[in-house]
Amino acid sequence: MKTILIVGIGAGNPEHITIQAINALNRADVLFIPDKGASKADLADLRREIIARYVTNPASRTLGYAVPRRDASNPDYGAGVDDWHAALAERFAGLLSEVPDNGACAFLVWGDPGLYDSTIRIVERLRQTHPVSVEIMPGITSVQALTAAHGIALNRIGEPVQITTGRKLGTVADDTIVMLDGQTAFTEADPDLEIFWGAYLGTPDEITISGRLGDVASQIVETRQTARARHGWMMDTYLLRKRD
Amino acid sequence: MKTILIVGIGAGNPEHITIQAINALNRADVLFIPDKGASKADLADLRREIIARYVTNPASRTLGYAVPRRDASNPDYGAGVDDWHAALAERFAGLLSEVPDNGACAFLVWGDPGLYDSTIRIVERLRQTHPVSVEIMPGITSVQALTAAHGIALNRIGEPVQITTGRKLGTVADDTIVMLDGQTAFTEADPDLEIFWGAYLGTPDEITISGRLGDVASQIVETRQTARARHGWMMDTYLLRKRD
Ligand SMILES: C[S@@+](CC[C@H](N)C(=O)[O-])C[C@H]1O[C@@H](n2cnc3c(N)ncnc32)[C@H](O)[C@@H]1O
Ligand SMILES: C[S@@+](CC[C@H](N)C(=O)[O-])C[C@H]1O[C@@H](n2cnc3c(N)ncnc32)[C@H](O)[C@@H]1O
Repeated sequence: MKTILIVGIGAGNPEHITIQAINALNRADVLFIPDKGASKADLADLRREIIARYVTNPASRTLGYAVPRRDASNPDYGAGVDDWHAALAERFAGLLSEVPDNGACAFLVWGDPGLYDSTIRIVERLRQTHPVSVEIMPGITSVQALTAAHGIALNRIGEPVQITTGRKLGTVADDTIVMLDGQTAFTEADPDLEIFWGAYLGTPDEITISGRLGDVASQIVETRQTARARHGWMMDTYLLRKRD
Repeated sequence: MKTILIVGIGAGNPEHITIQAINALNRADVLFIPDKGASKADLADLRREIIARYVTNPASRTLGYAVPRRDASNPDYGAGVDDWHAALAERFAGLLSEVPDNGACAFLVWGDPGLYDSTIRIVERLRQTHPVSVEIMPGITSVQALTAAHGIALNRIGEPVQITTGRKLGTVADDTIVMLDGQTAFTEADPDLEIFWGAYLGTPDEITISGRLGDVASQIVETRQTARARHGWMMDTYLLRKRD
């Protein structure tokens, strides 16, 4: 049986990788790196840098693979995702044939594999047709990179926290982390909230802004635009909470 | 100025530590380890094991300190916590005098310092009277250890997640992580939910149970009791979600 290692590599800082993840990468015969196109080359770069720094197993090789695009025009979001996962599971089956019998391969996953990432689900789907053994290695998420960069705790004492997406952001009752927000959903939120925003967290290009939302929202919108133009891509995360 | 490094060390597995955290521990002149009493000796042991494995700086020394108890009899929870933080800030001020001028010290924090941990807040309070430089290093949380152990994603595709405590667990609408639950609050939840439960995650004593809540709740209650009697302490975390 072949083994698939789903390895969290952190969300931008190569030093956020764990010893467990490094050991897992060194067990793999083949390391798989998704290729998401030229504009996101920086993201593939982090994976290559991690391999260059930490993989000492001379027998392993790295294989890039093209990630099929999700059909965003499908009006049924669930069905669109399902089709996309099916296409990726087929791609993964092809990759598996590159792995020697009883060998191991690793997928280098951004942040933690459990947080808004589809690798676990795609491998589950692959398993239905290809019996494989699967191990998951946690990684530091962008949420943790955000709170560490701002020097704050995620939660208030004994209070709950919500993690959601730009698309699902509604009225903020509890302290709320927002990810996957291409729509700058924060501009619609109560201006009296406090925001802790961060982009390119953990990388040399890290930017953080915090303050009363009404006071800093337009600064964040402009900073996003300028940075996106410069890098060709933008990844940001933020915490919204009621002020004390 | 002295530097305080607040270092997340993972929630039980010594290999969950990051390279950044290891480097931080090796910058410290003094490493502080909380002593929470004999019954929790295993917890202090993880910290000592991490230091033994990863700290190679011969000039550093380790200092245990007694953690004052929170007055649980105070009917005002907020005031009780506040008094306790004040006592800890005073303790930290005493520890700081052990650090050489312009030197660095590290607090080894369970899991991630941002998640249900008071170290950041106590150091903030200390800062009001003692100017210090502070750096925070994220760590793998018990939440990530839980989902990795069960081989599942934390969230459903594009859906939000709630993180809360046993005390605050109400009706489960979104997928919900429960921590700090000494009261087995899950026994009061909808039996048709699915539970993914884990104790001593990441340690050799890790236990996981999952299934329909109504089918496994009493097994979890009994497992908790037996394990707590054997270890003298219990740390468990779980995810509750509606079944597909
Ligand atoms: C597909 S999700 C992957 C999340 C990842 N698995 C994690 O654990 O952080 C991508 C979203 O994560 C957030 N993100 C990831 N890396 C980031 C970074 N370095 N800085 C800011 N946000 C980041 C952004 O909200 C982005 O839209
Ligand atoms: C004071 S909080 C600290 C959380 C920690 N900062 C983290 O990031 O996981 C303690 C709670 O964390 C959870 N926890 C911590 N370590 C755990 C482990 N190894 N297994 C299961 N639950 C754990 C339990 O819910 C416990 O009540």
